[in-house]
Amino acid sequence: MADSLNCDLNSLSPLQLFERVTEQGEKVRALKAGKAPKDEIDAAVRMLLSLKLSYKTTTGQDYQAGLPPRDLALINNGTTKEEDEDFVDPWTVQTSNAKGVDYDKLIVRFGSSKIDTDLINRIERAIGQKPHRFLRRGIFFSHRDMDQILDAYENKKSFYLYTGRGPSSQAMHVGHLIPFIFTKWLQEVFDVPLVIQLTDDEKYLWKDLTTEKAYEYARENAKDIIACGFDVNKTFIFSDLDYLGSSAGFYKNIVKVQKHVTFNQVKGIFGFTDSDCIGKISFPAIQAAPSFSSSFPQIFNGKENIQCLIPCAIDQDPYFRMTRDVAPRIGQPKPALLHSVFFPALQGAQTKMSASDPNSSIFLTDTPKQIKTKINKHAFSGGRDTIEEHRKYGGNCDVDVSFMYLTFFLEDDDRLEQLKQAYTSGELLTGELKKVLIETLQPLIAAHQERRKQVTDEMVKQFMTPRKLAFEF
Amino acid sequence: MADSLNCDLNSLSPLQLFERVTEQGEKVRALKAGKAPKDEIDAAVRMLLSLKLSYKTTTGQDYQAGLPPRDLALINNGTTKEEDEDFVDPWTVQTSNAKGVDYDKLIVRFGSSKIDTDLINRIERAIGQKPHRFLRRGIFFSHRDMDQILDAYENKKSFYLYTGRGPSSQAMHVGHLIPFIFTKWLQEVFDVPLVIQLTDDEKYLWKDLTTEKAYEYARENAKDIIACGFDVNKTFIFSDLDYLGSSAGFYKNIVKVQKHVTFNQVKGIFGFTDSDCIGKISFPAIQAAPSFSSSFPQIFNGKENIQCLIPCAIDQDPYFRMTRDVAPRIGQPKPALLHSVFFPALQGAQTKMSASDPNSSIFLTDTPKQIKTKINKHAFSGGRDTIEEHRKYGGNCDVDVSFMYLTFFLEDDDRLEQLKQAYTSGELLTGELKKVLIETLQPLIAAHQERRKQVTDEMVKQFMTPRKLAFEF
Repeated sequence: MADSLNCDLNSLSPLQLFERVTEQGEKVRALKAGKAPKDEIDAAVRMLLSLKLSYKTTTGQDYQAGLPPRDLALINNGTTKEEDEDFVDPWTVQTSNAKGVDYDKLIVRFGSSKIDTDLINRIERAIGQKPHRFLRRGIFFSHRDMDQILDAYENKKSFYLYTGRGPSSQAMHVGHLIPFIFTKWLQEVFDVPLVIQLTDDEKYLWKDLTTEKAYEYARENAKDIIACGFDVNKTFIFSDLDYLGSSAGFYKNIVKVQKHVTFNQVKGIFGFTDSDCIGKISFPAIQAAPSFSSSFPQIFNGKENIQCLIPCAIDQDPYFRMTRDVAPRIGQPKPALLHSVFFPALQGAQTKMSASDPNSSIFLTDTPKQIKTKINKHAFSGGRDTIEEHRKYGGNCDVDVSFMYLTFFLEDDDRLEQLKQAYTSGELLTGELKKVLIETLQPLIAAHQERRKQVTDEMVKQFMTPRKLAFEF
Repeated sequence: MADSLNCDLNSLSPLQLFERVTEQGEKVRALKAGKAPKDEIDAAVRMLLSLKLSYKTTTGQDYQAGLPPRDLALINNGTTKEEDEDFVDPWTVQTSNAKGVDYDKLIVRFGSSKIDTDLINRIERAIGQKPHRFLRRGIFFSHRDMDQILDAYENKKSFYLYTGRGPSSQAMHVGHLIPFIFTKWLQEVFDVPLVIQLTDDEKYLWKDLTTEKAYEYARENAKDIIACGFDVNKTFIFSDLDYLGSSAGFYKNIVKVQKHVTFNQVKGIFGFTDSDCIGKISFPAIQAAPSFSSSFPQIFNGKENIQCLIPCAIDQDPYFRMTRDVAPRIGQPKPALLHSVFFPALQGAQTKMSASDPNSSIFLTDTPKQIKTKINKHAFSGGRDTIEEHRKYGGNCDVDVSFMYLTFFLEDDDRLEQLKQAYTSGELLTGELKKVLIETLQPLIAAHQERRKQVTDEMVKQFMTPRKLAFEF
């Protein structure tokens, strides 16, 4: 269908193309509003992007909603509404830009704050060591109230970390590690308790899964999380299906949040509709509640008001905007946040890596050979079409997925800068850059697999048992 | 306002009156849809009933929606749409009929079955004793699948009882005892486990209460329930706020129900709107879940599929219609139900007794003197205006609240029949009938108070501790 469409498009007038883009945009919105299957939405978005590209090729202008080509020519002042093309919510990330989502615009749209050099320097002073590469390289790029966390830390007041994962399958990919790698670093440098929520109830509600299967995925995912090297004495991992029924505090906080959020609000924030099940509609309160220390009386000795810091990908921010809105109304402190960019799909930064699309993902279970094949075959290249052109004009690191992955995983700043210069100048070829990535990822994933093998059921049980941690409150 | 209104009404034409009734009807619907405060709805309903009465007095016809007086005269064929005047949902019961809600019509509307003589006889044969007065007198008048319960019982298959209460205040009134008196009898004759849900979370969500206060009310109400004489070895009483956080099975069933009910459905069943909080919207699943034995693994040894029988007032049926709709889709048996009529307010059967209106209620804490005063002062009488008229024409037991209460509380069938005949014939005066009621209720409530005094915090703790009961599964 997409192919026959491309043939048709060449014969369309700018106005006809404009109408096709508008129609397709409406179709995408309807699919999203109707919570259509991800595949269907993705296909519709891809067609939309393709239509927009044809529009731009034909008219020399970016498509602008509500402005047909003639009007556009009249008012054309050089500004385009690219931000319309980024779609970010907890279930979908799409952009037409090969560089990925425009994160500066997202900061403005979400009302968060940029992690700037001042903040990074302040973190460095507070912890007395070099900030993590994710901070140095803008991978964690946005925050809410991180200054308050540092104030508290400098005044010897404790806080705790909260992050999580929706266990939709046994297979975790390398992108899933990002929040955990960073959270582990935060926990080590600040020496604070950490709670990790596995939203198996969410996955049961959204997917075609039994509660038993969702819980099994949660336990399997816990093994990968534990394999990141968390300290069992400082870390509590919990499945909602399990912990909700064994905590004296969690449900009380959930029902408090649920009292203070209306259907209108979740409709606005998450795009729920009247046809959604009441489980989805009330779920945001379950992701909100671990932001309050009274959800973990066993850890915080029943104390409320211990400040919470949440490292997460920015698509989870809607949950916590809602949480921060409710917090003062239920007498709780607002959680602070550190937001990361999305981990790009192998095919390019237009969308994030997704475990449900095996070709877009490098899994934590992949063999060295699979890693090599996937990168060589699928990793979108910013290189030129021929060696000659590449040598002459150089590659484009801004859209090259292999280079992007290296910014996530290659620790050595100097080496990364050398690679960038060599690739941009054309000295380094795509195949050579991919080789560096393969050689970086293979041992990293092999080491993860080795550590994961050591994670026993007994250890999972220990991490997942509600208990006091090695902190006094 | 009502008085000045009555003056105005006399000067209105039938058509003007028709329009006033229509307008007021719309106002009532809007208030209900907007979940206006109960006082406001009640006031609007009272005015609506008053307008309808004026309409009937002026036109000699019952008001019929959409049929102005002239049209009505043209098509008048003697049938009237009285059922329009009954409003029944879990929060509001209103009718314009002094005899109370038309329960036969409610059975048709709700799609339940009448408890007929055959069923009562079958119960009598099964248990080998006289059925409870609530069955003999049609106070429990409707059921769903009671035959299945009796089939199971006759085949030595076990079932369990589930009933509950929303603890909105410390003050319980005599009407609140009805389901518990009947449930206790059911438990004794069938010898089965009983679970009693105290929906303190519901009260937190609907009222201006803290979770602590709602839980305190739950514990206080538990004392009144225990004072009904339940056997601690066969009965588990639980607060949602408490038990949800201490049960391995309850939340799993809640989330299963929540996955299978949409906002559209709860909107249709309960009248929720987009402005309602997500806690209210998802709450019906919490009242549904105790219908499934896997919510109580400690009692049923983890067994699913133990059949449940729910004795409750008919206004709770919407929750269980929803539950029965979901049950097969989550692989659970549908709960069976026994429905009671409402316990009338002192002022008459147009509405049910409500703890939030002290003048409509006889509380379990009332002194003998308070009981006497309330009945003498407020109990709506079906007697005549003068002794002479009463002697001549007799009283009307169908609308007399004192007589209604005696059908609930006077065990002796012959005595009740004598009273009915004497009152109807005019031999017995209103004051004399009230005296019989006072003398029936005073010792009954005094005995309850005596038993409640014996209920210690330790006993409450025992009843409310999740544990195995005296049954093997």
